[in-house]
Amino acid sequence: MSEGRERKQGEVVSMAERLRSTKPILRDEFITMAHGSGGKATHTLIEALFVEVFRNPLLEMLDDQAVFSIDGHPGPRIAFTTDSFVVSPIFFPGGDIGKLAVNGTINDLTVSGAEPLYLSASFILEEGFPVDNLRRVASSMAEACAEAGVAIVTGDTKVVNRGKADGLFINTAGVGVIRRPVDISAGNAKPGDKVILSGNIGDHGMAIMIARGGIDLEADIASDTAPLSALVKAMLEVTTEVHCLKDATRGGVVSVLNEIARHSDVAIVIDEASVPVRNEVRAACEILGIDPLHVANEGKLVAVVDRGVGEDVLVAMRQHPYGQHAEIIGEVTEEPKGRVLLHTPFGGTRVMDMLVGDPLPRIC
Amino acid sequence: MSEGRERKQGEVVSMAERLRSTKPILRDEFITMAHGSGGKATHTLIEALFVEVFRNPLLEMLDDQAVFSIDGHPGPRIAFTTDSFVVSPIFFPGGDIGKLAVNGTINDLTVSGAEPLYLSASFILEEGFPVDNLRRVASSMAEACAEAGVAIVTGDTKVVNRGKADGLFINTAGVGVIRRPVDISAGNAKPGDKVILSGNIGDHGMAIMIARGGIDLEADIASDTAPLSALVKAMLEVTTEVHCLKDATRGGVVSVLNEIARHSDVAIVIDEASVPVRNEVRAACEILGIDPLHVANEGKLVAVVDRGVGEDVLVAMRQHPYGQHAEIIGEVTEEPKGRVLLHTPFGGTRVMDMLVGDPLPRIC
Repeated sequence: MSEGRERKQGEVVSMAERLRSTKPILRDEFITMAHGSGGKATHTLIEALFVEVFRNPLLEMLDDQAVFSIDGHPGPRIAFTTDSFVVSPIFFPGGDIGKLAVNGTINDLTVSGAEPLYLSASFILEEGFPVDNLRRVASSMAEACAEAGVAIVTGDTKVVNRGKADGLFINTAGVGVIRRPVDISAGNAKPGDKVILSGNIGDHGMAIMIARGGIDLEADIASDTAPLSALVKAMLEVTTEVHCLKDATRGGVVSVLNEIARHSDVAIVIDEASVPVRNEVRAACEILGIDPLHVANEGKLVAVVDRGVGEDVLVAMRQHPYGQHAEIIGEVTEEPKGRVLLHTPFGGTRVMDMLVGDPLPRIC
Repeated sequence: MSEGRERKQGEVVSMAERLRSTKPILRDEFITMAHGSGGKATHTLIEALFVEVFRNPLLEMLDDQAVFSIDGHPGPRIAFTTDSFVVSPIFFPGGDIGKLAVNGTINDLTVSGAEPLYLSASFILEEGFPVDNLRRVASSMAEACAEAGVAIVTGDTKVVNRGKADGLFINTAGVGVIRRPVDISAGNAKPGDKVILSGNIGDHGMAIMIARGGIDLEADIASDTAPLSALVKAMLEVTTEVHCLKDATRGGVVSVLNEIARHSDVAIVIDEASVPVRNEVRAACEILGIDPLHVANEGKLVAVVDRGVGEDVLVAMRQHPYGQHAEIIGEVTEEPKGRVLLHTPFGGTRVMDMLVGDPLPRIC
């Protein structure tokens, strides 16, 4: 390893130190659904258990992917990521667990500035699962790969006894290549930066809730699952001054903004009126009593960019199908450090913290 | 991509064609435990469904890892692999699911000739799983990483409702680097080559069976789970004429030999008397009526090497703790193509085919 993030060893350690000083303590004796929510309980489990035990500088970056060079070669840096998918139900409007598994890992590579190249696919199947459903999921994965120009090059299949899984779980890992001189990380936001959201939020979470029969609504809401690699490529053609990129999945936009605020030791101030939400989604969220900012998306990203390029990046994003509803929703400020503030349309301001657990479990 | 396996595009296609001509048809309507066995049913599922749908030259190699170069850079080639682990019970003599998950992925990288560098770790947890057990598993993963000099650099955590998983499933993926001018693949065995087994077989499978209470035996048998990277490094310091390497996990040594015979379009003839098996393991296998050659190992490999270097490689292996019981167990012949033959101590010869299913499910 020779370049990229490793150059900033001191900085990495200081961020790790900063997080350690405020590190949550894991008090739970048993795993609860909240630990899988993407909210506070998940972050506590990760920081107080996994990062403590596995400790190394790349993991301590706490980004959605690790970035490294091989043997100090002057070639491009490599991004590497993984995600398991346990969504229920496995088929839903707009996609299925397979499409989600491919796009999710593509997006985790993409938000490091990498071009996704190769994926792995590992299946945990429950005895009795219909082979036709497996074929349908695999076909959907192949289509998603074709759209993004990636290939599934290695895999694994395990079967567990009936009643010991829930039909089908999929893990994908991915390898991508960072060709541009970018340095994108949740720790890189700076006061004055603009915060851009790539489009309407909450569609994925609400589509799953409706598919599950958990909400009595006839709304026409489909998951937004999509590969964001072409959108990010268009953004990076405008500027390399993209400081943070995160896809807003579990825990929604609020979790992503809180991670950035905490890791960058800054505040983020959002203008609620500028956050794009479709009417059907807003209505569904109101029925469930959930803020759309807490709801999972599978094809939306938050970008923190230098203030000087905010408008140019926005224009480029809006020319892309997956960015046509992009908006600048706020900016980064010095204080109060580590906090996300929301200006409401009624002139108020409130702190938007991560939820402890998830109002919508098994969303991905 | 520029070098290594890609140079042999024609050869890859011809192997894919050869497999296609004998390709099994998937007739099952539902997934059964046999599809996860590592035997014939698993290979049918992989070849008739996943390879059909995901089709690409790297996947069609059907090795335990994909090998590629990045952007045609003249730097070292990259190996990439994944495995999910669903072993039951998760703690057993000689290890646990975490140690298995780290060593398994290290070994899948290692058998391409790669030096393992970075792993991902993804956890699917069942609601109610004890946090202390998770900490114990994670610590065991960290120890296994330290022994092999690899780091877990990225991860994921999902939680499913009580009754929708079996405590804990782990996926690891891995990235390694191939620095030597080797070309190791199940398709590279040549008539005359020597077949080497790195040590005593059957320990892992029998340790799991005893831990499960599935066999009424007080034998002192522990899993052989171990990282084989240092052993393979020692072998490759002797010669680059290592043609095939496979760790003999699910399906045992017989599955590995059949894969090599089929992919290389050769026969493999094994001398049963030369296969090292510990007495306790042989006794346990006899009680269960299973041939040790069908039982899973987690720290043993099969190597097919040029006949001229067979003895030198064996000597190097025996100097290593994980290769001290290595033996030359047979050789590669022209005919009967695609078959594995076993010479018994009584002067007979029989065909050793893969089993359709697994006598010992959820072994890894």
